[in-house]
Amino acid sequence: MYILRKDGVKTTIKDVAKLAGVSFKTVSRVINEEPSVKPDTAEKVHQAIAQLHYQPNTAARNLAGTKAYAIGYVYDNPNAYYIINMQNGILNECRNRGYELIIHPCNASSANVTDEILQMVKRSQLAGLVLSPPLSEMASVMDVLDDLDIPYVRIVSGSATKRSHRPCVFVHDRDAAKNIVDHMISLGHQRIAFISGDKGHRSTEERKLGYREALLDRGLSVDPELEIDGSYSFESGVKGLKSLLDLETPPSAIFACNDEIASGTLFAARLNGIDVPGKLAIAGFENSPFSRQTWPKLTTAAQPTDQIARQAAQTLIDIIQSARNVKFGSSGKVQHVHFHPELVIRESTYLPD
Amino acid sequence: MYILRKDGVKTTIKDVAKLAGVSFKTVSRVINEEPSVKPDTAEKVHQAIAQLHYQPNTAARNLAGTKAYAIGYVYDNPNAYYIINMQNGILNECRNRGYELIIHPCNASSANVTDEILQMVKRSQLAGLVLSPPLSEMASVMDVLDDLDIPYVRIVSGSATKRSHRPCVFVHDRDAAKNIVDHMISLGHQRIAFISGDKGHRSTEERKLGYREALLDRGLSVDPELEIDGSYSFESGVKGLKSLLDLETPPSAIFACNDEIASGTLFAARLNGIDVPGKLAIAGFENSPFSRQTWPKLTTAAQPTDQIARQAAQTLIDIIQSARNVKFGSSGKVQHVHFHPELVIRESTYLPD
Repeated sequence: MYILRKDGVKTTIKDVAKLAGVSFKTVSRVINEEPSVKPDTAEKVHQAIAQLHYQPNTAARNLAGTKAYAIGYVYDNPNAYYIINMQNGILNECRNRGYELIIHPCNASSANVTDEILQMVKRSQLAGLVLSPPLSEMASVMDVLDDLDIPYVRIVSGSATKRSHRPCVFVHDRDAAKNIVDHMISLGHQRIAFISGDKGHRSTEERKLGYREALLDRGLSVDPELEIDGSYSFESGVKGLKSLLDLETPPSAIFACNDEIASGTLFAARLNGIDVPGKLAIAGFENSPFSRQTWPKLTTAAQPTDQIARQAAQTLIDIIQSARNVKFGSSGKVQHVHFHPELVIRESTYLPD
Repeated sequence: MYILRKDGVKTTIKDVAKLAGVSFKTVSRVINEEPSVKPDTAEKVHQAIAQLHYQPNTAARNLAGTKAYAIGYVYDNPNAYYIINMQNGILNECRNRGYELIIHPCNASSANVTDEILQMVKRSQLAGLVLSPPLSEMASVMDVLDDLDIPYVRIVSGSATKRSHRPCVFVHDRDAAKNIVDHMISLGHQRIAFISGDKGHRSTEERKLGYREALLDRGLSVDPELEIDGSYSFESGVKGLKSLLDLETPPSAIFACNDEIASGTLFAARLNGIDVPGKLAIAGFENSPFSRQTWPKLTTAAQPTDQIARQAAQTLIDIIQSARNVKFGSSGKVQHVHFHPELVIRESTYLPD
């Protein structure tokens, strides 16, 4: 399918209009999926587009006031699998809906991160944005985007936030974390440690809350020396185990805030000749490829990152296409979607007989 | 730094022109880094831009004939680390040069991959493209891009290709593969197996050629039963080892086409109770985080994917900015850069005393 006519000249929107017997404004409306076109007319236009192999360009789309067919994904996350899965989920939706994806990593702790996002949106004439933690949780970022009046969908950890008048995809890390620790307690573990992810990420906080809830619900106490500060990295798992082994009474189980940390903990356990799960049970979070490629395989929570991301992109594109100029908030159009990661039990916590 | 004036109105290119005492065409030329502007004048314009916190938008840039400030990265690769490193390398250069990045995965084996790329370039009004294998090695893709007259830089495996009149970043996989196998032979191995990556990827072919060259140079023969077809995945390494163990005389060393395959091979060796490196030496390729997180750590070839990608983006943006309308080919402007991955010896092949 080429966009050139047989005589080598580009097929234009006028060619399509002529063949369909409608005005070019109507063709433009069909291309932009505006609801004001009659189904019969739309069908005629689609047939003409197919027959001429016409490829709408940005200029044609702009005729109807639709600004752009690219969405942006703005993120700050060092976890390669998380990012790839996020991107793939968004890209799948983009492919289906005819959008392109601009990716833009930011340093969330930088003083001018909001300026950077502002400039990126302006320069790229984006139709909308998907945000993942921690940027999706920063009020300053939301303020800038609200000022620009650009649609955005946030992926957030947790079940309630202050700005829930904006569309969100919620990931219930806390419940999933609680299930993991519950599973460890059922296996008889009483000293269960927690190695946290990056500070300031809500996922870290939510997973820690789930860890504590599980302990308290089962009548165990929260021991501060078993809560280790870390970051979402393999190295953090290695370091975390080292400091836990220095304790007078080391834990018999460790819940690491994600699979990458858990892999590091497992690696360090091997270095120290500790049998997993015989002497130490280890669990991660995310169900990344990591979790299936370690030895033994990791118990984890299945967080369907690609589906979460695709849902966010779907919500965003729905908003862009159907309500570009409509304010959200009190209009009743706010979309909230919820994901509940599921417990996946593998050999790093439990060896079946 | 905001792009609004104190009175809430956007700073425009005309405000900058007025303050600098030049025409807005001149401001546009400075923004587009055209060489035709006198240094004094450019300096005045830059000062006015800084003073007004002016942020050039696409429209302003278009005034001077420069079409777009986004480049595209088109790829077909299942390896998360490779893609993340490629993206990060390109993004680093984009950040420095004021470009955005559109990512677009393709299925290289799809019949309409060239149409897809064509449409993507048209729709996104891209300034240029970076291509990685296998797309960078497909004549049909290059033909389409040549027809569009859009700048592109190819990352290719190997040292010579038919289309070397186009800018390329060459990665010398063959020599690096040869070094790995050489290292294994020095350790006394005589039956060394090869598990390949995806068919049709030149990297697979180049690494296999390097493997064979090392054997032949050291007076060993190439044994077809030791060359296993695979793909660039963990599972391929697991399967590869299984079929090698079925041989009457299994190999004592395995060179896997990348670290992901090698991790799978290592995993399967553990499943079968085989001591690594005592009974079996295993090496990968790429020096991905994988290679440092397995137990034992993997011998590999350090391929600086992010630097390779950054170099490709740098070459591309240089071309876009300095020679947008100049034909390459015979003009002497072709840029070729070479990368030589280096041998990294770790515990999966050699345990120091």
